[in-house]
Amino acid sequence: MKPILSYLKLYRTQEDRELATAFARIIGRKPLNLDLYKLAIRHASSTVVVETGRNNSNERLEYLGDAILGAIVADYLFKKFPYQDEGFLTEIRSRIVNRESLNQLARKIGLSVLVEFDSRRRSRLSHKSIYGDALEALVGAVYLDQGFKRCQAFVLQRLIGPHFDLDQVVQTNLNFKSRLIEWAQRENQSIRFEIIEESGSQHSREFVAQVVVNDEAISTGNGFSKKKAEQAAAAKACELLSLL
Amino acid sequence: MKPILSYLKLYRTQEDRELATAFARIIGRKPLNLDLYKLAIRHASSTVVVETGRNNSNERLEYLGDAILGAIVADYLFKKFPYQDEGFLTEIRSRIVNRESLNQLARKIGLSVLVEFDSRRRSRLSHKSIYGDALEALVGAVYLDQGFKRCQAFVLQRLIGPHFDLDQVVQTNLNFKSRLIEWAQRENQSIRFEIIEESGSQHSREFVAQVVVNDEAISTGNGFSKKKAEQAAAAKACELLSLL
Repeated sequence: MKPILSYLKLYRTQEDRELATAFARIIGRKPLNLDLYKLAIRHASSTVVVETGRNNSNERLEYLGDAILGAIVADYLFKKFPYQDEGFLTEIRSRIVNRESLNQLARKIGLSVLVEFDSRRRSRLSHKSIYGDALEALVGAVYLDQGFKRCQAFVLQRLIGPHFDLDQVVQTNLNFKSRLIEWAQRENQSIRFEIIEESGSQHSREFVAQVVVNDEAISTGNGFSKKKAEQAAAAKACELLSLL
Repeated sequence: MKPILSYLKLYRTQEDRELATAFARIIGRKPLNLDLYKLAIRHASSTVVVETGRNNSNERLEYLGDAILGAIVADYLFKKFPYQDEGFLTEIRSRIVNRESLNQLARKIGLSVLVEFDSRRRSRLSHKSIYGDALEALVGAVYLDQGFKRCQAFVLQRLIGPHFDLDQVVQTNLNFKSRLIEWAQRENQSIRFEIIEESGSQHSREFVAQVVVNDEAISTGNGFSKKKAEQAAAAKACELLSLL
């Protein structure tokens, strides 16, 4: 640990000091290299390409953070579920680190506020996964700034621990088709699933399914089996109907 | 570091001592928990399900090792190529950690011999990626046994460093279509690419392409653009013609 005085030197402006405090609240430690954290909240849509031609956005940090986060969560679940097979572990991991889940998490920990603060062009913030991207980039920044062990502590104690109920994650029903059917019964709507297209050769057939609610087609989905095409169409329908 | 004597205690049988020496030659350190390494070379095809119902193969270790290896290589490339974007980094990483590359690497470092030694049923060894799977599992075992830092040193100093020429990896032509065309010119064969099917809605069109050599269709491929469908068909053709 560096003494307090060196931090005062590191953070030269009042804005830097405030930003450092905001990040410290999120990650549990004062940033050493604040520039990494500033970069983490800089989305490509609000980036000015600097003169060297180097793209000065958080996309490289996001690539790194995605891999580090994946490894930390893989290790965590490996030890948490010693009797489950790799298919189970992979599925649970993807439920934790998927785009929507990371977007929500970024909002919960207050990272989204910093991203908005950084962005000079609010109109471009419509990009769907801007907060989740920033969260992955932040994991990359913490890894580079603090090393693997401290990054692991940040992910487990500040992200996974307080914000995921593992029992609930395991029990969540990700079968979109049955969710839709439950919804239709509850709301007294008629619903059916149809395969409307088949294509491809014998070895790689592909299907297009559609979801029809009250005789109106509301979504379609593709897949390499009828079941997968139906799931894809049902997932879109769930999103449209806000059932996620 | 534990003193030498404790290793003598750890490795009880002559076979264990020999196995520990063999692993030490591969990873550069004596295993602490030899059981992890034994598990790493135990492929599902040669596994007896133990009484607890716990699947005693290397698949869980492979899941963990895949994630750890991905993170270590992501970090390595991030620092090696400070001016390249995340698309480049992702592509180079997948060239290093893809199944075929890991299979070859497992043979180069002598891990394949240990896997064969372990397997009681050679006939099942036809499984394509058994060596690459074992290598990922070994990375998982080293991570659990030695921690992140030493696992990182193993991957960089014993796997990536001696066995990958990064300049060559970057320059490798992965454009299957142009490889095929080069082959056809060299071998004086006629070749053409055809789009034989289009399907899907306006927003997600899909295409099926086929490769025709001397008026005979030899492979097909699917993709969300004509170019991708052609690449997929060309990749299969390259495999058939042993051009990979």
